[in-house]
Amino acid sequence: MAEELKIEQKFIDEAKMLCRGAEILPDGFMGLAYKLQKAHNENRPLRVKLGLDPTRPDLHLGHSVVMRKLKQFQDLGHQVVLIVGGATAMVGDPSGKSETRPALSKEQVEENAKSYFEQMSNVVDIKRAEVTNNADWLHSMSFVEMLKLATSTTVAKMLTRDDFAKRYEEGRPISVVEFFYPLMQAYDSVAVKADIELGGTDQRFNLLMGRDVQAHYGFEDFQLAMLLPLIEGTDGQVKMSKTYPEHCISFTDSPKDMYGKLMSIPDELMPKYYLLLTDLDFNKDNNPRDEKMRLAYEIVRMYKGEDDAKTAQNDFVNVVQKKCIPEDIEEIKLDEPQNILDLLLKLGFVQSKGEARRLIAGGGVKFEGEKVASTDFLIDKSGVLQGGKRKYAKIIF
Amino acid sequence: MAEELKIEQKFIDEAKMLCRGAEILPDGFMGLAYKLQKAHNENRPLRVKLGLDPTRPDLHLGHSVVMRKLKQFQDLGHQVVLIVGGATAMVGDPSGKSETRPALSKEQVEENAKSYFEQMSNVVDIKRAEVTNNADWLHSMSFVEMLKLATSTTVAKMLTRDDFAKRYEEGRPISVVEFFYPLMQAYDSVAVKADIELGGTDQRFNLLMGRDVQAHYGFEDFQLAMLLPLIEGTDGQVKMSKTYPEHCISFTDSPKDMYGKLMSIPDELMPKYYLLLTDLDFNKDNNPRDEKMRLAYEIVRMYKGEDDAKTAQNDFVNVVQKKCIPEDIEEIKLDEPQNILDLLLKLGFVQSKGEARRLIAGGGVKFEGEKVASTDFLIDKSGVLQGGKRKYAKIIF
Repeated sequence: MAEELKIEQKFIDEAKMLCRGAEILPDGFMGLAYKLQKAHNENRPLRVKLGLDPTRPDLHLGHSVVMRKLKQFQDLGHQVVLIVGGATAMVGDPSGKSETRPALSKEQVEENAKSYFEQMSNVVDIKRAEVTNNADWLHSMSFVEMLKLATSTTVAKMLTRDDFAKRYEEGRPISVVEFFYPLMQAYDSVAVKADIELGGTDQRFNLLMGRDVQAHYGFEDFQLAMLLPLIEGTDGQVKMSKTYPEHCISFTDSPKDMYGKLMSIPDELMPKYYLLLTDLDFNKDNNPRDEKMRLAYEIVRMYKGEDDAKTAQNDFVNVVQKKCIPEDIEEIKLDEPQNILDLLLKLGFVQSKGEARRLIAGGGVKFEGEKVASTDFLIDKSGVLQGGKRKYAKIIF
Repeated sequence: MAEELKIEQKFIDEAKMLCRGAEILPDGFMGLAYKLQKAHNENRPLRVKLGLDPTRPDLHLGHSVVMRKLKQFQDLGHQVVLIVGGATAMVGDPSGKSETRPALSKEQVEENAKSYFEQMSNVVDIKRAEVTNNADWLHSMSFVEMLKLATSTTVAKMLTRDDFAKRYEEGRPISVVEFFYPLMQAYDSVAVKADIELGGTDQRFNLLMGRDVQAHYGFEDFQLAMLLPLIEGTDGQVKMSKTYPEHCISFTDSPKDMYGKLMSIPDELMPKYYLLLTDLDFNKDNNPRDEKMRLAYEIVRMYKGEDDAKTAQNDFVNVVQKKCIPEDIEEIKLDEPQNILDLLLKLGFVQSKGEARRLIAGGGVKFEGEKVASTDFLIDKSGVLQGGKRKYAKIIF
């Protein structure tokens, strides 16, 4: 950070606001304040980069953490630059990871990106964002240019990345091509002239690599890295992910589901959700149940609006807290007896028979108020079927 | 090696002959016999690959070891494929090595390659060889193709290469691009469909990598690696190299120099020179001096012809063994006294003043039969100047 630049209080305040819940490398929020001041002096917006993985287009509240930051930058007049990782998506990921990513066609990438942006527009003003695809510059890279890129860092440095270090240590293979992924992501920062790049804390290495590669390509100022914590799913156990749909809150979830899932989080998770998913401050002196309702209400309001938030809240109070069955439940007419697993799946209470089995095993399925104990259970008469805490259907024969 | 192929004795004999002084991986000479038989059955020649480094176009006897093998393959009707490393030469070598290679222009590469081939034609029939430049396929490689190449091996495997292992161990940097050099060399074996690749024993890793990469590209048979020992310079200390011209025998050396240098090798080096530089067998029961003269005569004969070999031998007997001054020595007229260092350099007895100083310090410089003891010595009268064992000039004032 150059010492001679005088930083106005205004930009220090903005930097502090932008840093809420985030880590800035290097130099913390003052590094960001410096960038804000410099851009102001140069009468230009900051270029705020986010790379998108078009192989996973299902967005959830976990993604909103970084997207909310983008929106804050937009509100301050800065330029958001979204980079669809088309180049890498079209190559696929040959790494030794358990989940290997398949190569996608150009059309699939575009379709996924479109869906991604639609969902993102819940938070970010996509129309004002600069949308790019790194296939545009990476696919046309020549042999000599790629070798130049590969000279920008060393093997030893690459092997300091946590996952590489771990795999190397454990004797698990790392394909040479995997060294190219961080290099390509870093080169994107050269191509779009990023001033700051956002990412999860798991992106620390890649985002800092962007600085090295910008230096290698003769930049005078290097991008800052803004790292945002990954949030846990509603069970508070592991990172929120579509892999565990019951603990994942999607933008497409109904207001009722969203509210209900948020009410199911462990109390310890509340401060983090407040910090990263809302602009509200967690109040530790409040009754935890009330504080959780305030959180759930706020998040549903943000994504679904005030009316839906109210309805969801009322419903929750009626159904869960007063333990009564909601009035507007779905009716389904059956002509013949049906196995409980098939029925739960048909009703959309579960995503798979495996989930249905787990739900039954956990005592979460009731028919006419009685727990269903067996996966062989047959529904052969009219009655109310309950799956989990919040899902009901009226079966009619 | 497939078991079902019956290998004729003829090909076993050929393989044994070709393996003289060489190591074949995998499976030793039987691996080669199998290839020879298979090519014969398929009625095609073997494709015998050698990669050339066009940044170092000065050839010497050290290079002849592998070139002699190429000639043997040619004599058996096989196809020699020479690959000029244009792609890599034009990139340069950014590694942490002490001698960094500069990037060469396309024209420089072509010029060096031309000189290389001229010198090679002392041994190999260049007209019958297939001459290629890997820039032809590497420079046109796309981003996706390069990533495909990079998936063919792992970081851990790369770090087993001796020099990489050593540098990684010692904390010296290895640029990521350096991982590409063995991959590119290996890809050349895909491009030219090599059945066998020749190289020095320091090429073991790279040549075996060729097999892995051929497998990655779906080949059914992989190339054999033929490894040839590096020979020491005439002092028997380090690898023969132009860096030490006094211990290096170039194709362009005069018959007299070549003969004299060969006569200066330590006795222990004779068996290796016989094995790798000639078709003759070393006879340990012979008088070492006679055996060394037979070696020197044979090598001068190979590169300069019978007549020059005889003259060189006679000269050597007269000058060195009978300690008399040869008759046909150069005369040089001086107008004013001259410093001994300058004069040695001017006469071409040495390549540098440093070499001149060493020669004087070692007692190798005589004027009129008297050892020159000081580097300040002035030649100010007529007389015979001797530099080293075999160089004379008549100074005339």
